[in-house]
Formats: sequence, C-alpha cells, structure tokens
Amino acid sequence: MKKISDSTIRRMSKYFRSLEQLIDKGVETVSSDTLAEMDGITSAQVRKDLSFFGTFGKRGFGYNVKSLKKQIENILGLYRTWNVAIVGAGNIGRALTEYAEFKKQGFVIRLIMDKDKNKIGKQVHGLTVKDFAKVNELVKEEQIDIAIIAVPSDSAQPVADKLVDAGIKAILNFAPRSLKVPKDVLVKYENMAVEMESLSYYLSNKK
Amino acid sequence: MKKISDSTIRRMSKYFRSLEQLIDKGVETVSSDTLAEMDGITSAQVRKDLSFFGTFGKRGFGYNVKSLKKQIENILGLYRTWNVAIVGAGNIGRALTEYAEFKKQGFVIRLIMDKDKNKIGKQVHGLTVKDFAKVNELVKEEQIDIAIIAVPSDSAQPVADKLVDAGIKAILNFAPRSLKVPKDVLVKYENMAVEMESLSYYLSNKK
Repeated sequence: MKKISDSTIRRMSKYFRSLEQLIDKGVETVSSDTLAEMDGITSAQVRKDLSFFGTFGKRGFGYNVKSLKKQIENILGLYRTWNVAIVGAGNIGRALTEYAEFKKQGFVIRLIMDKDKNKIGKQVHGLTVKDFAKVNELVKEEQIDIAIIAVPSDSAQPVADKLVDAGIKAILNFAPRSLKVPKDVLVKYENMAVEMESLSYYLSNKK
Repeated sequence: MKKISDSTIRRMSKYFRSLEQLIDKGVETVSSDTLAEMDGITSAQVRKDLSFFGTFGKRGFGYNVKSLKKQIENILGLYRTWNVAIVGAGNIGRALTEYAEFKKQGFVIRLIMDKDKNKIGKQVHGLTVKDFAKVNELVKEEQIDIAIIAVPSDSAQPVADKLVDAGIKAILNFAPRSLKVPKDVLVKYENMAVEMESLSYYLSNKK
C-alpha cells in the first residue's frame, strides 16, 4: 500500500462525518463538490484523497453515500471495535471514559489506570481505576490495542516507555510534549489549545 | 496580510511548542532542519511557513530560539489573554475549566453556562455554572472573546446561533457536527475521535 499522508487520513475522518450527516438527511448520492464544500476544501483534494484507496463513484454521477461511508469505515479500521486504556484518572481522563464519539466509532474504554493511591480503586463511569504499576498484566488481560496518555507533562515519557514495554503500538497523547518511542509505535497528539490558537490568530488579525 | 492556510497556523502552534521545549533544554539557536525533525515535516515546509510572516533568522545561522518564539507568540495572539466561555457543564466542559494548556497559553475560562437547572448554580473548579438563557448579558459582563461549545450534538446549532446573537466571533465546537454561522464568525472543530481514527488506520494497515 502506498504511504498515505496524515492529512489525507484526517480528511478521510472528516468525509466519514459528512457522509453520516448526509445519511441522516436521507441523501443518497453526493458529488465531490458537495463533500468539498462541507469540509471547506477543494473538490480536487477530495478526489485525490479518495483516489489513493481505489475507484469510488462514476464520473458525472457522484458517489453513493452509503457505499462510500462503508468503504471509508473499512479503510479507517472502524468496521471493528478497539480496546482502549486510559492512563491518568484526572479531569481529562475521566471525561474521556464517557466521550460519546469514542463509543460511536468503536473505541471501547476497557481500562483506566493511575499511580495515585487516592485514585486507585475509585469508580469512574462504571470502571474501577487500576494501579498503573500493573500495566503489563492489565494490558494483556483487557487485550488493549490503543492507549491514551492523560497525565501531567513530566510523567508522559516514563508512562509511554512503560506502555511500549507492555506491547502497546498506538498511543494518543494529551500531554503537551513530544514522546520518543520505537519506530513501530505510532503516537498521535491531542492538544486542545492548538485549535484555540487558530481562533486567537483569527481575532488578532481581523481587527 | 496574505491569506494564510489553516494548516500553516496549526504548524505555527507546533513550532511554538517545539521552541518551548528547546528553551527548557537551554538551546539558543535552532535550524529549520531540527524544527522540521521535531515536528515530523520537511525543513522546506518550516521555512515556507515562517516566510509568510517575514524574515526570521540568518541564512546558515538558524533561528534564535527565544526571539522566534516571541514572534510566533505575537502572530498567534498569545501575547495577551483571551476571555473564554464554555457552554455545557458536562464531563468535557468541566474538564476544560481546569485544562492547564489553556491557562498556559492565556485562554482564561471566565464563564461556564448550561441550560440544565440541576447544573445551574453548582461549582465547577471555582466557577459557578450560569444559566445559558442569560448568555447575552453574561458574555458582555465577562467580556468574552471566544466560546467553547461542549453540548450534545443536537443542541450545538441552536447554541451557536445564540452565541452569534450575543456577539461572539470565535467558536471552538466539541459537538460532532458542522455549524452554520455568519461569514465573520470563525468555528474550529475539536473531535478527539479523529486522532484515534489515525491510530486505528495505522493498526489496521500494519498487520
């Protein structure tokens, strides 16, 4: 398979959401122009992104909404569920255990861990906070595929090291610092201030 | 000022964070190669992004870390604070009132609102949940610059309409649906499942 860029994959996620909205509205066929407009990009970009994964739709007829959604679902691995562990039972970690978009997309939170003795054993939306010291066994027991790091910045690297030792190959990091991991482990970063900075940029340059 | 793409602005936020890490390590000068490596992009991209905003650094000498950070801070509007309101006192909304990265970047949460009578009046990390019905007065009183929507999907559009009526020009939307707003209002979207989908794509295609 060709090397597909991160931004293409991110746009595939956007197309997926736009297609869901179209299905809700009862729309059956969609043009690349419409998809492009929904996502604020060019139709050439839409066609280029989709072309990486094969031929969808017929020239001049647009795409069948349901079938395109199904195909993107397969591409993104959303046809199955993924077992997810959260490290850090603070505000963000706890909020994520109930995040509806995770459930909807098949990301099932099976495990929340912390090293704080005051948090271990407490209930968080139906899960018991487990001791991060037992990460190796816990990850095996729950057959975890993806780990989310929601700990303070200083602890993020040691936590990542232990997750890698436990066999985790995919990490979503909420701590605002970049992590060093082996080549076969993928880390994605989630920093909610980044989108805020696009807003402050906009407000600063608009006046 | 030239029209700068969203992705350039997002990368400026990344450079800003990389520069902070370099300052912490006591590094004084950085090349576009190093910045590129830290952010997983090409050095040509770094130079291109920075060139939109003027001339930084001297050819062959790299960039002065502190001065470049300062300049990006100005570009992104991070030299000042911004007053932020959160709509929705659910898990995500409550977690955001204490999100350290917001504070650090100058996004000050001044207000959290909800329409649920069981939530109005309750304390959330030092803020009292206010009645969203009074949004117009509250936004004026607290001189809100940016609003965050953290309500269920179905309520996101009516909430956005009321925020626009109250004079808000910049919105960060956590609800998983696109919003219709007037042209002078900027909406950014935060969907934490999107980065997870890059991970499931990776895991699906790696085996």
